[in-house]
Amino acid sequence: MRPDESERRAWAYLSRVAEAPCTPLAELVEKLGPVEVAAMIRRGVEPEDLRGRVSARREKDYAANDLDILDRLGGRLITPEDDEWPYLSFTGFGNDAMSKRQYSGVPLVLWAVGPARLDEVVERSAALVGTRACTSYGEHVTAELAAGLVEREAAVVSGGAYGIDGAAHRATLACDGVTMAVLASGIDIPYPSGHSALLHRIAETGLLLSEYPPGERPTRYRFLTRNRLVAALSRATVVVEAALRSGAANTAAWARAMGRPLAAVPGPVTSAASAGCHVLLRDTDNTLVDRADQIIELIGKSGELAEEPEHPSTPLDGLSPEQQRVYEALPARGWLNLEQIAVASALPPEKVLGPLTLLEFSGLVDKRDGRWKISRT
Amino acid sequence: MRPDESERRAWAYLSRVAEAPCTPLAELVEKLGPVEVAAMIRRGVEPEDLRGRVSARREKDYAANDLDILDRLGGRLITPEDDEWPYLSFTGFGNDAMSKRQYSGVPLVLWAVGPARLDEVVERSAALVGTRACTSYGEHVTAELAAGLVEREAAVVSGGAYGIDGAAHRATLACDGVTMAVLASGIDIPYPSGHSALLHRIAETGLLLSEYPPGERPTRYRFLTRNRLVAALSRATVVVEAALRSGAANTAAWARAMGRPLAAVPGPVTSAASAGCHVLLRDTDNTLVDRADQIIELIGKSGELAEEPEHPSTPLDGLSPEQQRVYEALPARGWLNLEQIAVASALPPEKVLGPLTLLEFSGLVDKRDGRWKISRT
Repeated sequence: MRPDESERRAWAYLSRVAEAPCTPLAELVEKLGPVEVAAMIRRGVEPEDLRGRVSARREKDYAANDLDILDRLGGRLITPEDDEWPYLSFTGFGNDAMSKRQYSGVPLVLWAVGPARLDEVVERSAALVGTRACTSYGEHVTAELAAGLVEREAAVVSGGAYGIDGAAHRATLACDGVTMAVLASGIDIPYPSGHSALLHRIAETGLLLSEYPPGERPTRYRFLTRNRLVAALSRATVVVEAALRSGAANTAAWARAMGRPLAAVPGPVTSAASAGCHVLLRDTDNTLVDRADQIIELIGKSGELAEEPEHPSTPLDGLSPEQQRVYEALPARGWLNLEQIAVASALPPEKVLGPLTLLEFSGLVDKRDGRWKISRT
Repeated sequence: MRPDESERRAWAYLSRVAEAPCTPLAELVEKLGPVEVAAMIRRGVEPEDLRGRVSARREKDYAANDLDILDRLGGRLITPEDDEWPYLSFTGFGNDAMSKRQYSGVPLVLWAVGPARLDEVVERSAALVGTRACTSYGEHVTAELAAGLVEREAAVVSGGAYGIDGAAHRATLACDGVTMAVLASGIDIPYPSGHSALLHRIAETGLLLSEYPPGERPTRYRFLTRNRLVAALSRATVVVEAALRSGAANTAAWARAMGRPLAAVPGPVTSAASAGCHVLLRDTDNTLVDRADQIIELIGKSGELAEEPEHPSTPLDGLSPEQQRVYEALPARGWLNLEQIAVASALPPEKVLGPLTLLEFSGLVDKRDGRWKISRT
């Protein structure tokens, strides 16, 4: 047994003994350490407030087996004692309004496979989430946003599901970017099974993460707790496509509850897959994004602002109101004298000459024999 | 000559003598009346600050002819002395920050053709505006919004142009609603000429409006002054489609400057025709709309709120967290006893029975011989 093996065993045992998240357990472990708490629970002498949460699985000690599976996958347990534990992301989970929410609570320990460091992923990351039933529009926009995030060295976080999640992971991998999938199942259970190759590739270059021990299958409840982790482990959440009722709306609610920036991508108002995004965007607290650099503006260092799109411009843009009125008074073809221009522009003749001279200087009008016409360039 | 004919003549003369809008002229007329001001200008004894604005067209008295044209069209002059003059809509035009804007100013008098009363149109109206180069998506959405506004007895205001403007007018007419076109040309000059039949139909059932006398042609300058009237003569402005640079953006800027609600319709982020709308929607002062009743919420009486869209719901929605955990713990097929359910849900057996009973009562689970399974309905 490795020197820290008893501790790892304790973490693994605790990860299974109570359904995650379990704030009283996390708090007790923080105080007494995992080994002592695991021993207490095994002996049935845990504090009263934990009893109901751990009694049913007290005897289920699969820790050695779970760690074998983890080792075979080349994975690791990330505990609050590790450097890569993203403390800040979990601040407030346990002790404020958040703790009163269903499914809330700090994770006890995280099961991870992949070369990316969790704290570094979180530091500069955006969650791209959305409906499983996405449209080709949603898939296209997701890929564009993911590519833009990779270009700006941000990590892309999602839930590994079909639809928008999968498009986000795939596009990030295609650009050699870092992507993290947060699962509602154990890290050895590819869910959905159609994504097992995709999840495998994520584990090779990015990070697969779960708060559930190996072998655990996703449930409705776990999808909701997983969504809270997606929101917690990214600096901003971006909903690309979501129907009025969708898991993405749940992730969005988490991001809002945690005070993280929440953004959505607009789409056709005729598309049910964008209706949830539009509901989010009618709330002035949320941000409309249509380009990756607008997401960087939400997650990046201060001063990383999105570039203003270039507005097409014409030589007429810089004209003063008088110059414009004089210019407009000139007919499409033919020459006018000063008096005629004055009438057409409703300006006195002495106010017409100045603007005309400047227009001529700008090459917008031509002058010949005391008459003017619009210059054709 | 009708008893008020000298006054009408004066209004018509004044409407042409200075390029609209001309705030000093409007203010002087408010003080002295149109007949006296017209006489002053004809004699060349107007106040100094007006001189430059009226000297060029002082001699151009086409009033009788202009009024003949108006009469032949069955139209009328709407003056500040008329009941249907929408005073409130112009408040602030002349005397605050607005007056410093280019092209700003209270209209002097309005040329109108059509049975609708201007004050009634304005009272419950929305401007639907947008790019001439609209997409079929934009056209479709405009028609849907216009139909929804008609259904809720609101008038649809626009600028008579190709693209979104035309779609708004046409859809309103098709639903027998009231629509008003505000022109940048005289009311006898159908512009664009391809819309002459459309403008004719608007004049028959709604209102054609212009601050320019008959025969006047639109110019770039006049499109901008017209845009300010579209914004002023509607309770809210809705941009349906607009490129980054578009006349609709100018109307939107007017609505904002006047403190009117400004809304935009989202579209695909891949569509250049929606890019201007998305820029507007990134500003939290503006409102995203995707249904007509959301526009009514902006323009209607207080309390006229848009209905919440119906969220699809499932029998699982009302479950407590414990009930959900118990429900989720049941396998897709096969029966479990109390002990097995307790382990699967990580709840102590005594906490499992209550939720199970309620789930059974709701018809979500079946019980037989002390075992439970998910009910297939």
